[in-house]
Amino acid sequence: MERDLYTLMHPQSVAIIGASAKPGSVGNELILRATEARFTGRLFAVNPKNTEIEGVPCYPSITSIGEHVDVAIIAVPASGVLNVLKECNSVGTKHAVIISSGFKEVGGEGVEMEQAIRDFADENGMVIVGPNCLGIINTDEKYSLNACFAPLQPIKGTVGFATQSGALASGIINILPNLKIGIAQMVSLGNQCQINSIDVLKMWENDEHVEQILMYLESIPDEVEFRKVATRISQKKPILIIKSGRSARGAKASASHTGSLAGDDTTANGLFASCGVIRELYLRDLFNTAQTFSKCVLPKGDKLAILTNAGGPGILAADTANDYSIPLAELTDATKEKLRAVLPPQASLNNPVDIIASASAEQYKASAEILLNAKEVDMLFAIYLYITGKNDLKIMEALQELKEKYPKKPIVTVLMTTPYFDLDLPKLLPNCNIPTFDYIVDAIHGLSRLVERKRYLENANNNVYNFEVNKSRVADIISNARIDGINQLTTLQSLEIFKEYGLPLPKFGNAQSLKDAKEIASNIGYPVVLKMSSKTVTHKSDIGGVITNIKTEDELEFWWNRLLERLNKAGLNDSLDGIVVMQQISGSNRELVAGIVKKGATHQMMFGLGGIFVEALHEVTFRPCPLTDYDAESLINGTKAKNILGALRGNQATDVKVLKETLMRLSQLVTDFPEILEIDANPLMIDEKGKLSVVDARIII
Amino acid sequence: MERDLYTLMHPQSVAIIGASAKPGSVGNELILRATEARFTGRLFAVNPKNTEIEGVPCYPSITSIGEHVDVAIIAVPASGVLNVLKECNSVGTKHAVIISSGFKEVGGEGVEMEQAIRDFADENGMVIVGPNCLGIINTDEKYSLNACFAPLQPIKGTVGFATQSGALASGIINILPNLKIGIAQMVSLGNQCQINSIDVLKMWENDEHVEQILMYLESIPDEVEFRKVATRISQKKPILIIKSGRSARGAKASASHTGSLAGDDTTANGLFASCGVIRELYLRDLFNTAQTFSKCVLPKGDKLAILTNAGGPGILAADTANDYSIPLAELTDATKEKLRAVLPPQASLNNPVDIIASASAEQYKASAEILLNAKEVDMLFAIYLYITGKNDLKIMEALQELKEKYPKKPIVTVLMTTPYFDLDLPKLLPNCNIPTFDYIVDAIHGLSRLVERKRYLENANNNVYNFEVNKSRVADIISNARIDGINQLTTLQSLEIFKEYGLPLPKFGNAQSLKDAKEIASNIGYPVVLKMSSKTVTHKSDIGGVITNIKTEDELEFWWNRLLERLNKAGLNDSLDGIVVMQQISGSNRELVAGIVKKGATHQMMFGLGGIFVEALHEVTFRPCPLTDYDAESLINGTKAKNILGALRGNQATDVKVLKETLMRLSQLVTDFPEILEIDANPLMIDEKGKLSVVDARIII
Repeated sequence: MERDLYTLMHPQSVAIIGASAKPGSVGNELILRATEARFTGRLFAVNPKNTEIEGVPCYPSITSIGEHVDVAIIAVPASGVLNVLKECNSVGTKHAVIISSGFKEVGGEGVEMEQAIRDFADENGMVIVGPNCLGIINTDEKYSLNACFAPLQPIKGTVGFATQSGALASGIINILPNLKIGIAQMVSLGNQCQINSIDVLKMWENDEHVEQILMYLESIPDEVEFRKVATRISQKKPILIIKSGRSARGAKASASHTGSLAGDDTTANGLFASCGVIRELYLRDLFNTAQTFSKCVLPKGDKLAILTNAGGPGILAADTANDYSIPLAELTDATKEKLRAVLPPQASLNNPVDIIASASAEQYKASAEILLNAKEVDMLFAIYLYITGKNDLKIMEALQELKEKYPKKPIVTVLMTTPYFDLDLPKLLPNCNIPTFDYIVDAIHGLSRLVERKRYLENANNNVYNFEVNKSRVADIISNARIDGINQLTTLQSLEIFKEYGLPLPKFGNAQSLKDAKEIASNIGYPVVLKMSSKTVTHKSDIGGVITNIKTEDELEFWWNRLLERLNKAGLNDSLDGIVVMQQISGSNRELVAGIVKKGATHQMMFGLGGIFVEALHEVTFRPCPLTDYDAESLINGTKAKNILGALRGNQATDVKVLKETLMRLSQLVTDFPEILEIDANPLMIDEKGKLSVVDARIII
Repeated sequence: MERDLYTLMHPQSVAIIGASAKPGSVGNELILRATEARFTGRLFAVNPKNTEIEGVPCYPSITSIGEHVDVAIIAVPASGVLNVLKECNSVGTKHAVIISSGFKEVGGEGVEMEQAIRDFADENGMVIVGPNCLGIINTDEKYSLNACFAPLQPIKGTVGFATQSGALASGIINILPNLKIGIAQMVSLGNQCQINSIDVLKMWENDEHVEQILMYLESIPDEVEFRKVATRISQKKPILIIKSGRSARGAKASASHTGSLAGDDTTANGLFASCGVIRELYLRDLFNTAQTFSKCVLPKGDKLAILTNAGGPGILAADTANDYSIPLAELTDATKEKLRAVLPPQASLNNPVDIIASASAEQYKASAEILLNAKEVDMLFAIYLYITGKNDLKIMEALQELKEKYPKKPIVTVLMTTPYFDLDLPKLLPNCNIPTFDYIVDAIHGLSRLVERKRYLENANNNVYNFEVNKSRVADIISNARIDGINQLTTLQSLEIFKEYGLPLPKFGNAQSLKDAKEIASNIGYPVVLKMSSKTVTHKSDIGGVITNIKTEDELEFWWNRLLERLNKAGLNDSLDGIVVMQQISGSNRELVAGIVKKGATHQMMFGLGGIFVEALHEVTFRPCPLTDYDAESLINGTKAKNILGALRGNQATDVKVLKETLMRLSQLVTDFPEILEIDANPLMIDEKGKLSVVDARIII
């Protein structure tokens, strides 16, 4: 059900229920914030003890106001909230922000009370934010709504900020001038008993005042819906998210905080990558990125020019760009010639362009323009240190002028001039919208996110391929396994399923007798591997059920008999499903791993370095299924596993297309058969010639 | 030669030669800075055109001053510098800071002029800083020396800052209030024609005013000397270094893996780690760490308590501590009981301790004291957000009081209150010396460096072991190789050398005939490997000179003949040195790599993940030789290679002591034979039982 959130953020009348005359109380702060913000609609206070609070007319209840109220801000004790909601509903107020705490987050009765208000709201078509939140803000002058008890008024801007930690909303408004961004709208999500982060995403999707979306999340309410919505919206505007509870300890703290359970963090990474959501780990990075997006267009390419009046910082910027994989533009001779004409002879004309300390503001500007005008340059990083002659303001003016002249090329700056300079800049140069950073690394971080987003928008796609497979045969295998009452399919069943889904398997056959085995082996060609396929044994190698590198028919006979002996001894004959004779994949130790696990409603695909390195190196990454073409590509490029795909020490490169298709076919398998809980395709071996083979299979339903 | 740098930084009289009355000129800025700083000694200007500049008496030359001058600050054009130096020397002024540029950095004649001033200084026992530098500063009130043309006066403090980028000195002084550190002494190193970063390190070694040393370096003048000096000094005070030029490609094409992976910068990492120097990559991190060291003692342990009045930031802090491997203290029941007694019931008593937004400053203080008093807590991270009731100042006062009461436990803070709050703090609370950070991650970064330094001081040692080896036999092998005119020793020679140095080799022998080979193989036991040992072939596997997994005597005969055929065909019989019959190391694919390459005067040891992963995963790290016991330990723990040393998927753990000794024995080898240029011990195989073997050897002299 789509709920009307427009009225919530754009009310013409607001009642603060639980308003208070007591200084420092939440009910008083709410009234103060709303009046300080100069709300353009009609504002009412509700409290039976007063007739006026801070100049706002006060009524005993919302029912006694006598005119329509769009939004109720509720700050009465938890036990009274349901009643207030009922009153709101009775006078047609369908939108409420419940500030009150004492609900799910305190457990016990609070959980029930929260369920009750949610049920009431749902049954009566009400829209509610909270409970246990700080409130909402809309800085659009048409509304100037501040229904939030954070102590300060935010700076107006283009950011939509939603947070599961109310305190953080307050903290961020407090330090907003430091962050050099401004707020368009803010929603403190609280316990999200009804309206949640996904609703807010959708609300901001087509709101032109919200140019980018920032979120602090501790949980994701519905991964499938989130993926759908975020993928769509990230095409239109940047979504930057911090999701906390990454560490075990952090997750524990989260559970006791807002009562929400922290999801598994590794899979959240995959989810965000798939959606084009930029995940930041730290607030510092979040705000540096936000500043960059709020003041820069996306570049056409990724080539950076660094302009500096001091050598050391130029080298540091080049180092840092390299750390973030941002290539420096190779300046053409023509560009260098132009620079030479305007710069002192000691200037360095290579990128970083060092115009030296004695250069004038005019020389700085001329160089910046030459670089912005150069075809080989996509972005400009302007560094200025005050050494002799303080030109910071002049340089920012010049850069602003150039920004308007060359609007397609992002410009970022670091000015090491005075400690307060860039905090004062909005006053000194109100029209300036060039990002300023305290540190080089913060500027480069911001630029790297511009490049990342540009690449995402260029490369992302929603292509989920439908390969031709034998679905009905797989349905039969699974239903047979069900009839046998087994959850982990036998090796043979798993291999058969992989085969029907077109995965690159080594040649293999099912031998019921030694004669079969010899025939299969001679068809395949030696060396071969024998693998028992059992309905009861889950780890076949633990009981010696796998024999590798069988080179001759004699060896095959010897090992066949030996294997049967072992099975006999272990009393496994009855549960035997057959013995697999499989081509031995030789030579290389390039081992990858692919696998799928179902978490909640979503199948998560894992890919990375395999063999003994799965656990030791943790070079694996995740994406939610179904895998798009882009997901498969970015999954493969997401770990160092990509480094062993190319030609390596006499081993040939593998065909990445085959690998990509393998992952997408696995994804199709779990999409077709959602009853599959786990798949291991491990190892995926790459042989010396680069051929990829899925050497073992395990499927759990 | 130890030079007298004390006088340089503690002069009683200073002459600024090239002083100028022209506003904005370097010569004028120098005079202004010196007078603004209220230099306590006698200050003279030198310029034939003036008799007084900015109130400072001015003389036509230093020789006409008529009294002794301790230090000359020289800012005349480059071509006049040598003459000025001569004049200084003639009147007994033995210390000079050469501000003038136009020397080595411009090439050509500049190089010669720089050599000339250096020679003159050396011949006449003069001490010179620069040329091409910004100057020097000593904020000690006994001297109040500012002989630097950076535009502002620095804040006084405990940091010694030396920089190869003069502009950076200026930039940093400009923004010093942001950095929340103060300067004791500053040296702009310039071209370091004589006094270099190592001299400055030594100068600050026993200077009690300099409590920590910060450096921005672009090069290291002498790695051997640097290592000696920095190792000694880092025992006394922290040394934090940014070395830039990381992205420049230093590695040359090389026959060995070690050689090709040993970039200049990678080895600098090893050098710093060995010395206990904290290397920061970014200025941001450098100053956050510096602030932490300047205001915190080292903790006794690494257990962190997080105190917050808001849940979200507490979770973020826990996540970030986890990212930096800082464990959170497990609070005891007793501690929790004490917290419960002072906190509201909704407070969370687990670490992070969330006292909730409504808690008072008194409750904040009481909780902080309980945590500081708890035995299980080594460090406190105090987070405060202003939500209702602004208590930031009260809380900082309380924390400062507690800091004095519990002086052994570091306290760091993040206050999200007002943008200017912590910049204003020095005025509001002048006695406060608790670090304040804008962001959680910056605070955690600082704490992690405290813990790192604590661990270094506890674990570092200078134990270079001297194992019993057969040095004279190795000397013979090398001298024979020299006589044969070969630079890359044969496989046999290399293996013999490894054997004499006690490395863990598989069993092997040198076969001159098939009969030999059979005898050796039967002694060793099958399977075996055959390897040609040639005086001319550097990559024996390229020409099929290595045959593995020979299982029987028949196979041995077959392959022996085949190998001889190959050699014959390739015309390699003459240069054959023998054929190595070696035990085949079976089973595991746990492959490590060790190697040594000589760069400059230093042998650099590399260790990490081997096999095909050397280049693909880059999980290798370096340390300079000779390797101390600590170096070997930290080398092994320096990459993910450590993750494959333990028991892994049915493979037994390896004996880390054997591995450590292997690295130290290799180090001893190059210490004994500095003529060795490169060694590859690759792969180092760990078999299923955990036994370590050096499977192949290559030595280049």
